[in-house]
Amino acid sequence: MAISFQLQHRDGAARAGVLTTPHGPVETPVFMPVGTQATVKGLTPAMLRDIGTRIILGNTYHLALRPGDGLIAEQGGLHRFMGWDRPILTDSGGFQVFSLASQAKITDRGATFRSHIDGSPLELTPERVVEIQQNLGSDIAMVLDECPPGNAGPEVVRAAVRRSIVWADRCRKHHTRGDQALFAIVQGGTDLALRAECARELVAMDFPGYALGGFSVGESPDAMHAALPGCAALLPDEKPRYLMGVGRPEDLLAGVAAGIDLFDCVMPTRNGRNALAFTADGPIRLRNAKHRRDSAPVESGCPCYCCATFGRAYLHHLFAADEMLGPTLVSLHNLSFYLRLMADSRRAVADGRFAAFRAGCLARWRAGT
Amino acid sequence: MAISFQLQHRDGAARAGVLTTPHGPVETPVFMPVGTQATVKGLTPAMLRDIGTRIILGNTYHLALRPGDGLIAEQGGLHRFMGWDRPILTDSGGFQVFSLASQAKITDRGATFRSHIDGSPLELTPERVVEIQQNLGSDIAMVLDECPPGNAGPEVVRAAVRRSIVWADRCRKHHTRGDQALFAIVQGGTDLALRAECARELVAMDFPGYALGGFSVGESPDAMHAALPGCAALLPDEKPRYLMGVGRPEDLLAGVAAGIDLFDCVMPTRNGRNALAFTADGPIRLRNAKHRRDSAPVESGCPCYCCATFGRAYLHHLFAADEMLGPTLVSLHNLSFYLRLMADSRRAVADGRFAAFRAGCLARWRAGT
Repeated sequence: MAISFQLQHRDGAARAGVLTTPHGPVETPVFMPVGTQATVKGLTPAMLRDIGTRIILGNTYHLALRPGDGLIAEQGGLHRFMGWDRPILTDSGGFQVFSLASQAKITDRGATFRSHIDGSPLELTPERVVEIQQNLGSDIAMVLDECPPGNAGPEVVRAAVRRSIVWADRCRKHHTRGDQALFAIVQGGTDLALRAECARELVAMDFPGYALGGFSVGESPDAMHAALPGCAALLPDEKPRYLMGVGRPEDLLAGVAAGIDLFDCVMPTRNGRNALAFTADGPIRLRNAKHRRDSAPVESGCPCYCCATFGRAYLHHLFAADEMLGPTLVSLHNLSFYLRLMADSRRAVADGRFAAFRAGCLARWRAGT
Repeated sequence: MAISFQLQHRDGAARAGVLTTPHGPVETPVFMPVGTQATVKGLTPAMLRDIGTRIILGNTYHLALRPGDGLIAEQGGLHRFMGWDRPILTDSGGFQVFSLASQAKITDRGATFRSHIDGSPLELTPERVVEIQQNLGSDIAMVLDECPPGNAGPEVVRAAVRRSIVWADRCRKHHTRGDQALFAIVQGGTDLALRAECARELVAMDFPGYALGGFSVGESPDAMHAALPGCAALLPDEKPRYLMGVGRPEDLLAGVAAGIDLFDCVMPTRNGRNALAFTADGPIRLRNAKHRRDSAPVESGCPCYCCATFGRAYLHHLFAADEMLGPTLVSLHNLSFYLRLMADSRRAVADGRFAAFRAGCLARWRAGT
């Protein structure tokens, strides 16, 4: 087995565990910084290590287009290419085909579309998606799935689920790399019966891990929070559970409460590049004039390099002057915040006080800044 | 005395010494990375330390405009504001008024101009330039000088020299900060007689250090290299000598040969942001298709984080994908190259083999890539 997963603590539906991968262990619940194009934007691997990053995410769609998975394989694989020797999860590209590519067409065979870079025609099939990820050499690969938009009608969602199940099976049969785990993706929107049907068929195929896809695509946060416990409970208890592309700090806590182990989202880095910083007292906007002479760190007590070294006035200046270091430093802090939130959640689960921990976070963020 | 300077070795006109400042010692000859807006673009102070940076440069003109020298003083001074606890030299802003501001007008009183940021009217006088730099708290401040363009006629250059001498004296008389050294700037273009006249008057004022200004403003590299030995010899032997804003690696070696101790230039960082990397075998353009599958480091044997961690293929990819990390990493490497060039020059001077060292560098760069 490429990976193993040991549950260590339970607190209601919430869990704490250890995911062991070919590139080392990952304590869960965990947040995975997003390194779409073989780089977490603006941060070096050394910076990611410094804030305690254990696993990052890469993107099959982007990397297959540029620089190409064959080139990355020639360069020794994605870990070596990007200088990151801890675990990597690669998503399958299904979501990007629908959100980034133009003229996407879906058939049972796969997805054809035009590259968002140069418009060239391309195809992703289940088999090709597995081949790409085997070339990349990620620790965890994802099956190709069809991701209907959040406002799709029930028949569209149902057809996407049927196709995603068939594609997952084709991915599984094509997958050969022994040092890589292939995770399945449960779709079905907010229709719990459809999610259950999808999960049942995928669980029967015995994947080493399962993801929930199709959240955070337009539904309300309340609808997502309401759907999560039921959806998470459909997944095998003893295997890692990954909630794809979600989300805000409060969404991560809802996910942990529902029994999710793995998270990824662009929010900490994308918001960081736009001068929005997450703190224990809620988010702050560093471009705001009130921070112009504010010598306090972004978040008091945060051990990250940004907070240990600089005041808000300096960060305000960097953004006002359009200096690259601003996006870098606030991305670093935001990832530190997300990683600490998951590490703190893990300790709270171990201590049997996760519900109180979550309520305390939410109250403090709401009281806010 | 805010600073002291000890010469340790001589090799022809070249020298090796130690400049002692309130924020620690600086071995010379030395290159100062340019941190115009209180940041060396894209690099953290920790990265600058990692490559052995001993002293950086800040910019009076930019910092007075944004965020304001009063604000920086309130924040504890420039060192604390930007998280850099080693020495800082601030230039006076004279050069920037002429190169960046619009509608610059010079009178004996000072320079009036419009901000390049918002067009607001501003004035820099000798007294105000000293006040700004005392607010910033740099270890070394520079006098205000008038910088005529490289193609200015002899009368214009002569008038600028006269005014720069008067301004230097006014700066000296206004300067009170005991933990800051104020350096004078010798102007006069490539007219050695005029440079000599300027130097004679400034030397009589007994500044703790002297700079050569007005190079690298349009004259040919050959003309500059020819003028440097004579110009450097005009400056007091026992005091530090700073060649402002110069330049290419071969220009730094010409400067060291002429007896210069301090250098600054935007070339390593500006070129780094544009994917041009300096190496022991000459510069390489990382956007060039020949580096697409090149797994070699930017410069074999370079100890910097970029070269120790990544191959050229990865850097090529970062620039192709317009990822921030490319400019950061190549700026880091280029500064490492410049700092090593000066450290190697220092050792060569100490060993009495600087001429051979310089010839070897030039031959290798020319044989090139």
